Order: sequence, then structure tokens, then C-alpha cells
Amino acid sequence: MFESDEHLKLQDNVIDEVKKLGFAKHTFSEVILTIKYEDIVNLAPIGVLLLGSNLYCKIYSNSKIYRFFKKGIRDCVLNITDDPIMFYNAIFEKRKVALAPSSLVTSPRVKECVAYVECRVDYTEDRRECMDVFMNPIFAESIKSYPGTYKRAGPAIIEALIIYTKIEHFKTVDRVKAEHFFEKIKTFREIVYHSSTKKEYRQTIDEILKMSEAILRS
Amino acid sequence: MFESDEHLKLQDNVIDEVKKLGFAKHTFSEVILTIKYEDIVNLAPIGVLLLGSNLYCKIYSNSKIYRFFKKGIRDCVLNITDDPIMFYNAIFEKRKVALAPSSLVTSPRVKECVAYVECRVDYTEDRRECMDVFMNPIFAESIKSYPGTYKRAGPAIIEALIIYTKIEHFKTVDRVKAEHFFEKIKTFREIVYHSSTKKEYRQTIDEILKMSEAILRS
Ligand SMILES: Cc1cc2nc3c(=O)[nH]c(=O)nc-3n(C[C@H](O)[C@H](O)[C@H](O)COP(=O)(O)O)c2cc1C
Ligand SMILES: Cc1cc2nc3c(=O)[nH]c(=O)nc-3n(C[C@H](O)[C@H](O)[C@H](O)COP(=O)(O)O)c2cc1C
Repeated sequence: MFESDEHLKLQDNVIDEVKKLGFAKHTFSEVILTIKYEDIVNLAPIGVLLLGSNLYCKIYSNSKIYRFFKKGIRDCVLNITDDPIMFYNAIFEKRKVALAPSSLVTSPRVKECVAYVECRVDYTEDRRECMDVFMNPIFAESIKSYPGTYKRAGPAIIEALIIYTKIEHFKTVDRVKAEHFFEKIKTFREIVYHSSTKKEYRQTIDEILKMSEAILRS
Repeated sequence: MFESDEHLKLQDNVIDEVKKLGFAKHTFSEVILTIKYEDIVNLAPIGVLLLGSNLYCKIYSNSKIYRFFKKGIRDCVLNITDDPIMFYNAIFEKRKVALAPSSLVTSPRVKECVAYVECRVDYTEDRRECMDVFMNPIFAESIKSYPGTYKRAGPAIIEALIIYTKIEHFKTVDRVKAEHFFEKIKTFREIVYHSSTKKEYRQTIDEILKMSEAILRS
């Protein structure tokens, strides 16, 4: 009896933390999801909602992470950052992403994020094109917390990344739409160039454009 | 001698704070600028760079705030937030924006921002189409600081606002470009709708689209 009360109390606190971190029912939070299957770690940017006491995400079947979930994943970590370079590395340079051990789960954390939510995978439902994943947050930790100014370049890079990950799919399904996506990446490139002369940002958006072009022309 | 040392020390600290808040040389920080001219307060979203020990912004001549700077403004506040609704209100609903007194300057703060930088206006240079404004930060204060998840909807609304403020100008100069801007706002509307079902966000982006259409069709 006592133990189950304690457990409930712990869960309550975690949900409060998760809400405080900005997870919500109506607006997706974009995080970097880390999982571990046997000895293999994988990570990818994923959009997450808070539905009741569950965190929810939808994993499309064209990703490696989908295949891992299909094999059976027990836990995962939601790594919270708004650093566009981290989002970029989570797709293009997974090996560059520095990892650190988690507190309660076997899946690792991504170093240098501002907060972490460690989760048990509660329930998955495999559909044709994607998988619904419901997670139970069991531990939340905030690391850094200094307010920062709003910059346009980061979100523009993140939007370009999202489009990039869709081009592969649409290239075969809808060529015109894929070309249209390419134009959109150019728009985001303009935003980056217009709002920042930072080399790293400009190189990153150029790289995304190049990779998108490579997919389209292949 | 002592006094001037103290002064230098104070300034040093402020610049450190300003850097910590994310102001940088290579990437614009988008803030809400507040000014006071005689008894009139005005505010607007503005992009700011940190150049040496100066904060710098460029104010286009089609704004009210430009005319105030032309009349002579002694101080201002850079209000730091990433809340898209605040950016929206700073353009469309200026009266709705709650203000609070500053610590060292006569220009007020915008309530509920995460940080504030109070500045003396150091030097302005009027060009034909715009005015270069160099500010001296004299006091910086951080209020709230809890890490938050990254959400796509906010930046999309802010980008739509930026486009909106350009349509009026391009409507007379370059009609084709203005129509093109309108299409871009639609793209950002898609991002908002795709990443959030939050009423306030959806209404806000719809409003921006409506206002843009009204300008174009007028
Ligand atoms: C900000 C952002 C959010 C994303 N959200 C999702 C998502 O919710 N579901 C999904 O399946 N893919 C999403 N993606 C795409 C995946 O991250 C991408 O396909 C990734 O390369 C998959 O890696 P993997 O093949 O190693 O699993 C997102 C990408 C970005 C940049
Ligand atoms: C995020 C953002 C950044 C902006 N940056 C600038 C800027 O750097 N310079 C400028 O003149 N206008 C900028 N604008 C446009 C002005 O905020 C806009 O023209 C405003 O309505 C001016 O208000 P006023 O006419 O009351 O002065 C920006 C708008 C947004 C949404």
C-alpha cells in the first residue's frame, strides 16, 4: 500500500516536471529521442505530445528507429535542446553526438542538452506507415537554465531538416511535391543567411540543401 | 579615478550578462524594443546585434519607431522573449502589452519577459531608408529561467509576422514579390497547423494571413 502510494507520488511529480518543461497536449515538442537496442544506440529528432500522463510520438516506418521499436524497446530518453546543430547531428552525424549514461534507464542521454526525460515505453501500436508510441516518464532532470534571446537562424535550420527527412519519401511518391520541398529549403536558407553570418549555421544549411539536391537528382 | 574604475567594472559586467543572454556579433537576436518619447511609449520587434560593447539595430523608415528615433530618444529597453503572442501583440495589439517600470531608464519594460537589457542610446545615424542605432547596455536582468522544449509553432508565427511587416513596403515597390510573401505566410500557417492544435496559435496565424491579404487587396 505504502509503496504504491510512493510510486503514485513519484509519477505525479514527474508529470509536473514534464509539463513545466513545456510538453503539452496541443503543441508538439521536438526532442532528440535516444534508444538502446541490445548494444546499439540510435537517436533521432522526434515530435512529442503529452496526452494525459503519457508522452506520445509517432514514428514513421522509413526510419531505422522504427525498426528498433518493432524489435522491442523498453525505455528511451527525450533529450531537450533547441540547438540546431544538435538536431542536424542527430540526423547526419549520429556518431558525433556525445552520449552520457542516464539515471534510471538503459538508453543513454545526449550530452549538453538543457533537460532530460527518461521514459519507460508503455505501449506501442504498429500501423501500416507508422507506429504510435506511448511512453511513461519516470524521471525528469533540468540541467542548464539561462534565458536566451530569440534567434531566427536555429528554427530555420530545424525546419529545413524536417523537410529534408520528407524528401526521400516524397521523391518516389510525389515528385512535384519533392521539388516543392526543395524550394522551401531554399527559403529557409535565405532566413539563415539573412539573420546570421555565423559560419557553422551557414555551412549547416548549405549542407542540408546539398544533401536534398543529391536525393532529388539520384 | 575610483569612480571611473567602478564605472568600467559595471560596464564589463553588463556586457558579460548581455553575451550570456545570447546577444552576438554574427546572429541577430530578435527582441521587443520599448522606447518612450515625452509621454508616448512605443514598442516593436527588432533585430539586434552585439558589436563590441555596443548593441546595434537598424530601424526602417516606414515605422513609427523610426520617427521617434528621429525626434531623439535617449534610452530604450530590449525585452527578451520567445513568446510568439508577445511578438504579435507588439505589432498588432500594442495597447494589450502590459508594461512595467525599468530600473535605470525611463523607457518601460514589457511585463513577463524572461530578461531585460536597459540601454542608453549612444549614437544614431540616419540613412535614407533606415536608421542605424547604437546602444549602450547599462543594466541587464534575467527573470525566469526554466528550460523548455523546442516547438515549431512559435517560430513559424514569428516568421509570418516578419513577412507581414514587409508586405506593405513591397506592395508598392514590387507587387510580384508581395504576392510571393503571401504564399510564404501560407507555408508558415501550414507549419503552425501541422505542429499545434492550440487555438490561440491557430487564430494568431489566421489573423496574420487575413491582415496580409487585406493589405494586398487594398
Ligand atoms: C525536428 C524534427 C522532428 C521530427 N519528428 C519526427 C517524428 O515525430 N516522427 C518521425 O518518424 N520522424 C521525425 N523526424 C524525422 C526523423 O528524425 C528522421 O527520419 C531521422 O533521420 C530518423 O533516423 P533513423 O533513420 O536513424 O531512425 C523529425 C525530424 C526533425 C528534424
Ligand atoms: C521578429 C521581428 C523582427 C523585426 N526586426 C526589425 C528590425 O530589425 N528593424 C525594423 O525596422 N523592423 C523590424 N521588424 C518590423 C517592425 O517590428 C514593424 O515594422 C513594427 O510594426 C514597427 O512598429 P511601429 O510602426 O509602431 O514602429 C521586425 C518584426 C519582427 C516580427
